[in-house]
Amino acid sequence: MSEGTNYLLRLQYDGTRYEGWQKQKSTDRTIQGKLEKVLEEYCGQPVEVCGSGRTDAGVHAMGQMANVTLPGEQKPQEILEYVNRYLPEDIKVLEVSCVPPRFHARLSAKRKTYCYHIDMGSKKNVFERKYVYGFPFSLDVEQMRQAAAILEGTHDFKSFCGNKKMKKSTVRTVEAIRIAQENGRISISYTGDGFLQYMVRIMTGTLLEVGLGKRSPESMEEIFKARDRGAAGFTAPPEGLFLMSVEY
Amino acid sequence: MSEGTNYLLRLQYDGTRYEGWQKQKSTDRTIQGKLEKVLEEYCGQPVEVCGSGRTDAGVHAMGQMANVTLPGEQKPQEILEYVNRYLPEDIKVLEVSCVPPRFHARLSAKRKTYCYHIDMGSKKNVFERKYVYGFPFSLDVEQMRQAAAILEGTHDFKSFCGNKKMKKSTVRTVEAIRIAQENGRISISYTGDGFLQYMVRIMTGTLLEVGLGKRSPESMEEIFKARDRGAAGFTAPPEGLFLMSVEY
Repeated sequence: MSEGTNYLLRLQYDGTRYEGWQKQKSTDRTIQGKLEKVLEEYCGQPVEVCGSGRTDAGVHAMGQMANVTLPGEQKPQEILEYVNRYLPEDIKVLEVSCVPPRFHARLSAKRKTYCYHIDMGSKKNVFERKYVYGFPFSLDVEQMRQAAAILEGTHDFKSFCGNKKMKKSTVRTVEAIRIAQENGRISISYTGDGFLQYMVRIMTGTLLEVGLGKRSPESMEEIFKARDRGAAGFTAPPEGLFLMSVEY
Repeated sequence: MSEGTNYLLRLQYDGTRYEGWQKQKSTDRTIQGKLEKVLEEYCGQPVEVCGSGRTDAGVHAMGQMANVTLPGEQKPQEILEYVNRYLPEDIKVLEVSCVPPRFHARLSAKRKTYCYHIDMGSKKNVFERKYVYGFPFSLDVEQMRQAAAILEGTHDFKSFCGNKKMKKSTVRTVEAIRIAQENGRISISYTGDGFLQYMVRIMTGTLLEVGLGKRSPESMEEIFKARDRGAAGFTAPPEGLFLMSVEY
């Protein structure tokens, strides 16, 4: 007898108003919490939504993925329409599809891409203030690209991990870091098999310090060796960060 | 003896949180009110900021213009930096320049351009929800362009005026209405010598009804003749509307 159907959801959210993806007892302002609440109303029983990973408070998603098992068999389109009718307007489900029972949005993920947006101008556009980090300094993008090339690959990213008590492996593979520059705007995209807590934001802060001339590209090697959060740069703020896509 | 200097300000604002441009006794959530408050702190005496025109609650500006006379002679750059330091982050002064004493941001204006953004898709991007009107219907843009061509020119726009008690002339000249379409998005730009209350939003609602096939382009002539608000279409909501520029 069927115990229900496993659904994969692709979703978009403006993280500004939320305390991040992960449900918390102390607040109902989380993306996971909002999604579970609407799905529980839909199917009349408790559900647990598994995201591909947590996003921090204030971080946005263009394409977060999550799976959830719901009783019976519902049409994906019906679920999509229902949840979008009741979710707050800053969270939207873009797609719902059926996946095998063992599919897990986090454990099955092969690759994720994040993008971080920086505005170097002194006049940050008011319409983008929640989606771009205003950093009104001149940056040497070529130096940043050299440092990014050293960060690419399989390394122990312990120095880039915000969780000092992390017990599990801090080795990750960053397949590509691309830095695009246009009209005073810099966008850094990161693709990899997984990212530690704050890792993208710490890599971004470190690359910005390279761009300012405070660090050399070669010093990235020393940061890896230190295995100490203090060796890396500052944690760039959440508003510039978007989870772009998750691949399976 | 000098009575002060007249300054012209170009400013940008996200109108979402505000009750419109014009100062009101009942609320301090107006753009004019916020700007006057900061300028009064700057110069230590009451000031009056004159905008090129009012924008409604929720309407945005990429390039609103306003003038203000301040005591003495200040450097425009100093004023710019001061006000941007104290204004809320959704209002920004882009430029300050000195203008002749008789210059008046509203009376001296020769031409204004507004732009209205519509998303025809059913999946409005969550990041644009406050800046685009979601209208998930198929629209015949060619019919809309034909209707727009009839709205262009010098006409009595009384049917497109939201203020029923308007005593002054309702004749205006709309120089150009351009409709651009791209990826399920329609942007309608309006350039003219002046616009009545809600006029851009009522023209937009009327053009949308033409796009749906509910009205013919030719019926625009009947709306002009009626001189009655009830003859025109609905008032499109404020969030899609931007005051783009004011020319002198």
